Amino acid sequence: MKKILFIAISFLFIKNSFSQSEDSITIKKISDEILTNGKAYDNLRYLTKQIGGRLSGSPQMVKAEKWGVGVMKESGADKAWLQECMVPHWVRGGKEKADILYNGAVTGARNVLLFHKQLDVLALGNSEGTKNKDLTAKVILVNSFDELEKKKDSLKGMIVFYNYKFNQSYINPFLAYRDAGAYRGAGPSRAAKYGAVAVIVRSLSGSTDNNPHTGATRYDTAYAKIPALAVGLKDADWLSHQIQENKIISLTIKTNAHFLPDTIGHNVIGELTGSEFPDEIITVGGHLDSWDPAEGAHDDGAGCVQSMEVLRVLKAIGYKPKRTIRFVLFMNEENGLRGGNKYAEEAKAKNEKHVFALESDAGGFTPRSISFGGTPEQLKKLQSWIPLLYPYGVYEITNGGGGADIGPLNRTFKTPVAELAPDTQRYFDYHHARNDVFENVNKRELQLGAVNMAALIYLIDKYGL
Amino acid sequence: MKKILFIAISFLFIKNSFSQSEDSITIKKISDEILTNGKAYDNLRYLTKQIGGRLSGSPQMVKAEKWGVGVMKESGADKAWLQECMVPHWVRGGKEKADILYNGAVTGARNVLLFHKQLDVLALGNSEGTKNKDLTAKVILVNSFDELEKKKDSLKGMIVFYNYKFNQSYINPFLAYRDAGAYRGAGPSRAAKYGAVAVIVRSLSGSTDNNPHTGATRYDTAYAKIPALAVGLKDADWLSHQIQENKIISLTIKTNAHFLPDTIGHNVIGELTGSEFPDEIITVGGHLDSWDPAEGAHDDGAGCVQSMEVLRVLKAIGYKPKRTIRFVLFMNEENGLRGGNKYAEEAKAKNEKHVFALESDAGGFTPRSISFGGTPEQLKKLQSWIPLLYPYGVYEITNGGGGADIGPLNRTFKTPVAELAPDTQRYFDYHHARNDVFENVNKRELQLGAVNMAALIYLIDKYGL
Repeated sequence: MKKILFIAISFLFIKNSFSQSEDSITIKKISDEILTNGKAYDNLRYLTKQIGGRLSGSPQMVKAEKWGVGVMKESGADKAWLQECMVPHWVRGGKEKADILYNGAVTGARNVLLFHKQLDVLALGNSEGTKNKDLTAKVILVNSFDELEKKKDSLKGMIVFYNYKFNQSYINPFLAYRDAGAYRGAGPSRAAKYGAVAVIVRSLSGSTDNNPHTGATRYDTAYAKIPALAVGLKDADWLSHQIQENKIISLTIKTNAHFLPDTIGHNVIGELTGSEFPDEIITVGGHLDSWDPAEGAHDDGAGCVQSMEVLRVLKAIGYKPKRTIRFVLFMNEENGLRGGNKYAEEAKAKNEKHVFALESDAGGFTPRSISFGGTPEQLKKLQSWIPLLYPYGVYEITNGGGGADIGPLNRTFKTPVAELAPDTQRYFDYHHARNDVFENVNKRELQLGAVNMAALIYLIDKYGL
Repeated sequence: MKKILFIAISFLFIKNSFSQSEDSITIKKISDEILTNGKAYDNLRYLTKQIGGRLSGSPQMVKAEKWGVGVMKESGADKAWLQECMVPHWVRGGKEKADILYNGAVTGARNVLLFHKQLDVLALGNSEGTKNKDLTAKVILVNSFDELEKKKDSLKGMIVFYNYKFNQSYINPFLAYRDAGAYRGAGPSRAAKYGAVAVIVRSLSGSTDNNPHTGATRYDTAYAKIPALAVGLKDADWLSHQIQENKIISLTIKTNAHFLPDTIGHNVIGELTGSEFPDEIITVGGHLDSWDPAEGAHDDGAGCVQSMEVLRVLKAIGYKPKRTIRFVLFMNEENGLRGGNKYAEEAKAKNEKHVFALESDAGGFTPRSISFGGTPEQLKKLQSWIPLLYPYGVYEITNGGGGADIGPLNRTFKTPVAELAPDTQRYFDYHHARNDVFENVNKRELQLGAVNMAALIYLIDKYGL
């Protein structure tokens, strides 16, 4: 197989030998600059350690926006600005509680021994809480939606515990996430439909620890907006076992999660103005907002600092883009997508021409692939560049892809979109959990992502798509 | 490029459609079993947390050997035994010291202010110490061997500080390791040749922390065996800067490193006896010994538990090998290779037929590739199986490779050898340093390495090579 691959690579090199050689030299310059003088890692340290989690509407969001404009300027943007958009303002409102009362007596013992256990939980994003009051009810174990339907007549007044497991047999954990994701998204309303008073959802993760993983839920407005919490995997296993042993007496939850009125947020935009086709716009970005319990290091501090590193490196090697390149830190990907929508709306209002957009929102892990959403001809052109990316880790460009924030551009203008697809194995160990911190990002993996992004942007700017 | 790849893949599937389909089903079984019921991670936890670092000759080595035989049996070996070999017995002999005396006064100040700073150091493996006595001398900074030669007349009585940097511009850090490795290996004797009394060597790493990285040095017996220490990167940068500012007065080192007489160690061997060709032997292994300051999790606990997972999964899915498969935990890879040599010597003495050997000794990271040392025809055959491995992460099989422990088999019998080549970016953050611990191994990445190893062994057993 490799021989065939190399024959194909050689063929491409022969076909385009001069320009390929010039391109490989430029991409080597990009790589050397990023791997030896890169700023992405230091920028990520500042964003995560000095600013921290930055949910839409939070004071940290405001700090992060200001920081972003500064880094865009330092990185060499011709101009940098904030693009205003209204954002939802959901707040956790303090620490949640999930207190299990259970019979801890050994089977056959004459006396009942009652114990309390605190489950490690996080309110789901966009969920409504208990107004900070205790809500006590019995818990019912439900391993799937099928089981929910079978038990629908016994859910009234109960707390539903969704214990649907992350399917570890998928090689790509994003498939397991998509599979289990419905429980976080639709679980609360599907339980409310049958009279449940709250839900706790097994975290969408296959990790080895007990950290709960939050993330947005979506209420169906036809039913009551009942409180919803994510629970850590070890606690989920414990609870499931105790329920099956008939040991659980009740669960008391308390959350103060609620919405405040929408507030003002911003996309942060830096620009290198094109020298030949300034009206043709290429966008590179990640999202600046992140869940509150962590530092948003992989999700998506990584994508933000990589995008700004693309800007910095193009300036540092003295590349003058033909087209206009926009570097965008999108606001509110996590619980509203208002930033991504605003960016496309304003582009439409101004009749801008968006020729390509690239997002990095799958973590700062070692690069392997790029996913692409566009025409077969465009895909073919991108794939002809694989030999240039291959030395830096990207060995394939797959059909179907593009990040959430650039989706609106694609839907509005049919702009071809792509996403950096790094290795997926560690992503859901950290995703939306309190261990999504700077220490769990590897400097070289982060940098190599930026190398491949910069190389792709360079090629698209130079040759068009 | 991907289109071409898929055409090639389709072609192979058509050509061998029946067996490929049977093979892909078997490999999916292997993967499902490892990813859902795998024992590699738990075994690694025990090896690292309950036994720990296990240098040749240490009490932990003895414990680890006993543990290995037990796991081989639990994993389903038809037989399991210890293969005795004499091993070198180097000991650190307690905590090393490197105490810098320096002028901490600001430039232009009237008074000299003297300070002490302890550098974070580790004696190099196989090095001789100061017999636990203080050795105080001036330090000379040397950034390369070229610089050493230029300064050769001023080295007498000095401590040489090799500050040769890990070249971050290499995409594959193993190239940077090979490049800088000469300073750890040959540096002490090259300095001793000119009368230096000790050396400290910048750690062979591009990490962001200050952990020193040990590893074996090699004295040239023509010169004095002078003490040799590895120093952490931050301390190396500090020291280099202070030397250039003429602030350093002296360095006092103390190490008690020394050799004890050779002692008895063992390779741990488990076997599945072949049903059709029991005389044809396939070997799968990693090395059991590891440096003392850490837990030897990636280097090479990972390779050991992956190899035993290959054994376990073949039994678990009910596969009956045609050929005899040996699972070997080699002893003494780090500072002698006595185990690997012994294995090949005994094989020769018994006139065994070794048809293939596979090692995992590049860390428990996400799999990408397999390196191979054999004939072009054998390589071509292996590469024809890439479509079967591709869904599990291995997208190429490259020419030239095989691990250190199976090198003697290759040299003795021309046995074709291969090595699992996982992603390389994080390896030298941990290699031979105190942070090579269980917590830095990701469960899924470790498991996927075992999946690809087991798939390859299955294919080679079934089809031969």
